[in-house]
Parts: sequence; structure tokens; C-alpha cells
Amino acid sequence: MMDEEVLFLKDIALFKDLPDDKLGKVISIVRKVTFRENEIIMQEGDVGDTMYIILDGTVEVAKSLVLGNLDDESTEKNKVFTRLSGKHHAVFGEIALLEESKRTATIKAVTDCLMYEMKKDDFLNLAAKDYELGYRILLNLSRIVSARLRKADEDTVKLSTALSIVLQET
Amino acid sequence: MMDEEVLFLKDIALFKDLPDDKLGKVISIVRKVTFRENEIIMQEGDVGDTMYIILDGTVEVAKSLVLGNLDDESTEKNKVFTRLSGKHHAVFGEIALLEESKRTATIKAVTDCLMYEMKKDDFLNLAAKDYELGYRILLNLSRIVSARLRKADEDTVKLSTALSIVLQET
Repeated sequence: MMDEEVLFLKDIALFKDLPDDKLGKVISIVRKVTFRENEIIMQEGDVGDTMYIILDGTVEVAKSLVLGNLDDESTEKNKVFTRLSGKHHAVFGEIALLEESKRTATIKAVTDCLMYEMKKDDFLNLAAKDYELGYRILLNLSRIVSARLRKADEDTVKLSTALSIVLQET
Repeated sequence: MMDEEVLFLKDIALFKDLPDDKLGKVISIVRKVTFRENEIIMQEGDVGDTMYIILDGTVEVAKSLVLGNLDDESTEKNKVFTRLSGKHHAVFGEIALLEESKRTATIKAVTDCLMYEMKKDDFLNLAAKDYELGYRILLNLSRIVSARLRKADEDTVKLSTALSIVLQET
């Protein structure tokens, strides 16, 4: 059973380059949780300390933006929606491993879901006992977060450009 | 001499909670470099693998935004300017420790400057030999980057709001 669980984690960017014994330690601090179809898993703006890994099922990510990006699958004005599923071993809420912070999106189960949850304190305690594990996970996590920062910076420039054009025309 | 250098690093958020012996190891991989008044230290868009810590002097950070934020010290349209100095033990370019990536701002020396530079490979090699050091620095770095991501997300929402208001009025 452990082997199958370790195999699942191997495909997750957050656990890239972790040897099997470290993945086993990761398994030791996660807990399996289930969510029902339509259940809200986290609410944008709430403070959280839990990361989730989807094992089975699909969730919808809704992020408030006063103006939605029409190229995306926006079905409601002022929100951007994306979907994540167990098929892609999707992870969400990983910034909560670093510090308690406000959720930046609302996540809703669109099917019944099975997930691993990992708590910030369990991760930080494990990392402080096994610095190699902590180092490797944080190297992955900080690369993921810095890629997102680059994307957010690009969005800012695009939005500023749009605003500048509109203001010049009026 | 080492003590004075270690003392300087203690005030830097990136090295928070590092014991003195680890700070000594950090000192062992940095190199002192100087820049002349008006010299460009890094150019927005260029790829870099170096982080800088200002020991003495002041730099100007210029970030291209098609629309500058008028509340800031914008002195030129389409750019935001801020200043960093040795007085506050300022650090810049730290995302380059994670991976070679494009600089997100242009940094110019506004006075003669003395700095420490740290190269990505030297940092990653040191961290792979001393995982505790790597873990502690990456925990600080990932918290710094995630705070910036939060700020960038807030900027996106503000800009979207402004754009939405302007579009409704036209």
C-alpha cells in the first residue's frame, strides 16, 4: 500500500527529487479526507493552514476578479474559474504550509472527492527533524510560488496596458 | 571581521533564524563587489543568477508598468521607481537563487555602492551540503516570495476594478 501511495506523490511537482524514504515520511503526516459533491473546501479570504492533494475527483477554483478574463472559462462575470482533478495529481493551498494566510480562491468539490490533507505544523515539524526533506520540498515550493509571481507580474503589466489604452481613448 | 559581517547579515529577512555558524558559511560564498554612481547593476528582462545585498550606497529600482502608480514616487510615465539602501540592509535579485530567471526590474546605482553578491550555484551547492542552512534560507525566501505574490494579486484586483469602472463609464 505504501508503495502505491509513494508512487502517486512522485508525480507531484512539490515532491520532485524526493527519495522514496522521504516520500514515505510525507505519507506519514498526511490524512485522507473526503468531500461531497458541491461541498466548499475552502473560501476565498478565510485563513487556512492546510494543503490538499487530490487523489480522486474534481474541484472548481473560483477567484474573484472584478473583471474576468474572457479567454478563460469564465461563466460568471467578475470571477475566473478553473478545474483541478486527481487525474493530474493536483495540489492546492500549498502556501498555507509556509504560514497561515488568506485563501486566494474558493474551492468547491464538483464531484465527490478523496484527498490528502497536510497541515502546516505537521510539515514544519517534520522538516525541522529532516532538513533534507524540508529543503527539497521548499525548493520546489519556492519555485512554484516564484513562477506564479512572474505570471501575476505579467498580468499587472497587461492590465495596466489595457487601462492606459482605455484612458487615452476617453 | 567575521563577527561584524555576521552581525550585518542578522538583520536581513532572508537570513532570519540562522545560527551564527550558518551565517559564517553564508559569508564564505559571497563576494564583495562595487558599482559606480549611475552604473546599471541589472536590466529588466535580462536573465540573471545573482543576488545582491547592499552594504553601502543607494540604488534605484525601475519597473516598467505601462501605467505608473501616481501615488508612488513616479517621476517618469510608465515606470515605478523605488530606492533601496545599505542602511536597511536591502537585498534584491533573490529569486535568482532558485533558478535563472528574467529580472523583473532595472537596478541602477545612484551613489557608489558596495555590495555582497551571491551566485545561485554557490547557494545551491552550499545548501545541498548543509540542508539545515538551505531549509532555513528557503523558508525565509519562500515567505518573502509569497508575500510578494499576495501583493501582486491585490494589484491585479485593483487594476481590474479600475478597468471595469472605466469601461462602464465609456
